Amino acid sequence: MAQQSFGNPRPVIALMTDFGIGDGDVGVMKGVIAGITPEAHIIDITHNVGPQNVPSGAWILAAAYRYFPRNTVFVCVIDPGVGSTRGAIALHAGDWYFVGPDNGLFSYIMSEQPVHASVFLTNTSYHLPMVSSTFHGRDIFAPVGAYIARGLDSLFVDLGPSVNPAELRRLDVGGAVRKGSTINAHIVHVDNFGNLITSIPLTVLPELYTVSQVKISFKENGVTVDKLRQFFAEGPDDGQAFIFGDSSGYVGIAIRNGNAAKTLGVGLGAPLSLITSES
Amino acid sequence: MAQQSFGNPRPVIALMTDFGIGDGDVGVMKGVIAGITPEAHIIDITHNVGPQNVPSGAWILAAAYRYFPRNTVFVCVIDPGVGSTRGAIALHAGDWYFVGPDNGLFSYIMSEQPVHASVFLTNTSYHLPMVSSTFHGRDIFAPVGAYIARGLDSLFVDLGPSVNPAELRRLDVGGAVRKGSTINAHIVHVDNFGNLITSIPLTVLPELYTVSQVKISFKENGVTVDKLRQFFAEGPDDGQAFIFGDSSGYVGIAIRNGNAAKTLGVGLGAPLSLITSES
Amino acid sequence: MAQQSFGNPRPVIALMTDFGIGDGDVGVMKGVIAGITPEAHIIDITHNVGPQNVPSGAWILAAAYRYFPRNTVFVCVIDPGVGSTRGAIALHAGDWYFVGPDNGLFSYIMSEQPVHASVFLTNTSYHLPMVSSTFHGRDIFAPVGAYIARGLDSLFVDLGPSVNPAELRRLDVGGAVRKGSTINAHIVHVDNFGNLITSIPLTVLPELYTVSQVKISFKENGVTVDKLRQFFAEGPDDGQAFIFGDSSGYVGIAIRNGNAAKTLGVGLGAPLSLITSES
Repeated sequence: MAQQSFGNPRPVIALMTDFGIGDGDVGVMKGVIAGITPEAHIIDITHNVGPQNVPSGAWILAAAYRYFPRNTVFVCVIDPGVGSTRGAIALHAGDWYFVGPDNGLFSYIMSEQPVHASVFLTNTSYHLPMVSSTFHGRDIFAPVGAYIARGLDSLFVDLGPSVNPAELRRLDVGGAVRKGSTINAHIVHVDNFGNLITSIPLTVLPELYTVSQVKISFKENGVTVDKLRQFFAEGPDDGQAFIFGDSSGYVGIAIRNGNAAKTLGVGLGAPLSLITSES
Repeated sequence: MAQQSFGNPRPVIALMTDFGIGDGDVGVMKGVIAGITPEAHIIDITHNVGPQNVPSGAWILAAAYRYFPRNTVFVCVIDPGVGSTRGAIALHAGDWYFVGPDNGLFSYIMSEQPVHASVFLTNTSYHLPMVSSTFHGRDIFAPVGAYIARGLDSLFVDLGPSVNPAELRRLDVGGAVRKGSTINAHIVHVDNFGNLITSIPLTVLPELYTVSQVKISFKENGVTVDKLRQFFAEGPDDGQAFIFGDSSGYVGIAIRNGNAAKTLGVGLGAPLSLITSES
Repeated sequence: MAQQSFGNPRPVIALMTDFGIGDGDVGVMKGVIAGITPEAHIIDITHNVGPQNVPSGAWILAAAYRYFPRNTVFVCVIDPGVGSTRGAIALHAGDWYFVGPDNGLFSYIMSEQPVHASVFLTNTSYHLPMVSSTFHGRDIFAPVGAYIARGLDSLFVDLGPSVNPAELRRLDVGGAVRKGSTINAHIVHVDNFGNLITSIPLTVLPELYTVSQVKISFKENGVTVDKLRQFFAEGPDDGQAFIFGDSSGYVGIAIRNGNAAKTLGVGLGAPLSLITSES
């Protein structure tokens, strides 16, 4: 069996797209994968990334990938430029593999992990026989991801020409600028509970739970939050917003049993300042 | 291989959460499971339980678990108390295993099945190395569920101290009180079609299809329903609400090709009386 | 092991329903399948087909099935007639197997593929022991699909009496009528991005990208679209709707980084005319 020759009994392929789950598109990508790598364990990250929202997809992937097994192949398709001249790429970075469009979707990955190899996906032997202009998730990214899961490094070099990672598109993911006790940042994610996740890594603010005071101000509507909690059920169920260290590794804002995004009138991208002070 | 030593070639792990599917959180839990138990067959029950709605989650689980194979491990995370002192538990009940917070989520299970073993999940060897205050689904429940799927009983006792099931939190799941021909109950679930499911088990009302008359009255808005059908396509497509025996094993209310919840203005938790009469 | 006797190491079972994913119903179907065919690879096409919308489900299946591996078993449940006298069927058509209600859901399949065998699912040995009146997805279609995945042809004949495919229900799927340079058609699908997919196969309009002019007019609101692009990122991001060849193999209408359905005020079923002309 193929799996034995690669020593990879049940390779994990993780999918992330903005296709939603109301169409059959995600199912079709899985059908293509199952045809090439029947033993694959296919896991959905999410398919509800905001339509064509590359920065949001990049952040969701960044918060997720470390929890997947070594050699997981991530097939990621948020791809407003599909069919144009934007490149299609695969990366071997850290302990994982990434496949998708060259539009910045892997910016956090490339800034956080050593890139061992990166290629443009020009070898059509690994694509479907007919490639459409509008659904490269099905025609290029799913089959390439499935082949990588079978072959890993031995196959990687055959996918297309090597490209210097420095030449790949990157988003500005340096979203937290610290000057003394002030950090300027923005909201990078709003989760299912309406919790707001900022671009401030907890590693940039190691004193979060030890300073006397911490305050976040939103620039657009002047709303401020100055309470701090370690978990949602700490303190009263009083409808007050509080700052907390989110499980993603970033500073967040939440309301116990409430929806902070709606209550504060703040959404994705909103600029903010966090100020700490000692009394 | 591990699977052979446990005689469990492809253990099923079923997931239920209120995380929604717009974030990567569910995918991350699956990544954690795949890293520990690569051979697991992961099945989603739903991730769209109403945010922090423990009673709703408890009911959805109750309607589902019997249809899963023996030894399925259910990892269930509706957990408003995450990070607080609420316990984290695992149960071996009936033919299945259940992992989640000690907040009543397994109330139906404990009332319907013999509990063979129950433990608090305090042994950190089975958790991720870093446990956050806000995402125990990833850091505790997913890895514990994955280890149980590998080891079942031999491992169970090692997860933490045994607890008497009588000491675990339970919801009041006795939602149907019968006095003669009147049953007081409430709505426990609204499904995707807008069908209303009541807390009245069909076993409490064996005469449903043989009495002369059956009527449900909603206490809050006075709406009554007094038609009865065995299936949706019985009788005319007339927009009239009718009572039926739902596939979950409970009395339900539906409108053929319509949405009973919207049309009747009735939602989750709505109190009601069902009255039967012989003419 | 069963899988060896059938030479089918990991059979694919693809699911499509209108159950949504807020209930546990889809999970329950998967639990039933896992109990019968533990080695199955279960893939979701979608569970968000419009409630009881058989034509929409039929189209989504038609656009998807060709991308699944040979011998995939499709279990499809959009079933407003559940519990009535409508038949339950299984088809072996082309390289695939299909299970579901006899209500037209497989109309495209039967018009596009040779039907090698078709049966009514009356043999209750392959159903769950208790069959409800409202959830045949769980009680009949999931178990039958799981058994087919184990046994394929050898088992197929045992499911129930053979039926002539000509006697099965079919929708009118001939949705594109060409008279010279005019094609009368309608919208068969609105995707997650708001792209409108027409009932005009690209094979009916091979000259799409070579004629001088192509124009689509919607009959109900008089809106017309007369621009043409090969992919979304071709040309300016100007909010203008354009005609394109969709990856499903049909003519579509889209707006770059926009929602054509909302902008044009056009939805599922909307009648239209496409007119080509040479200048």
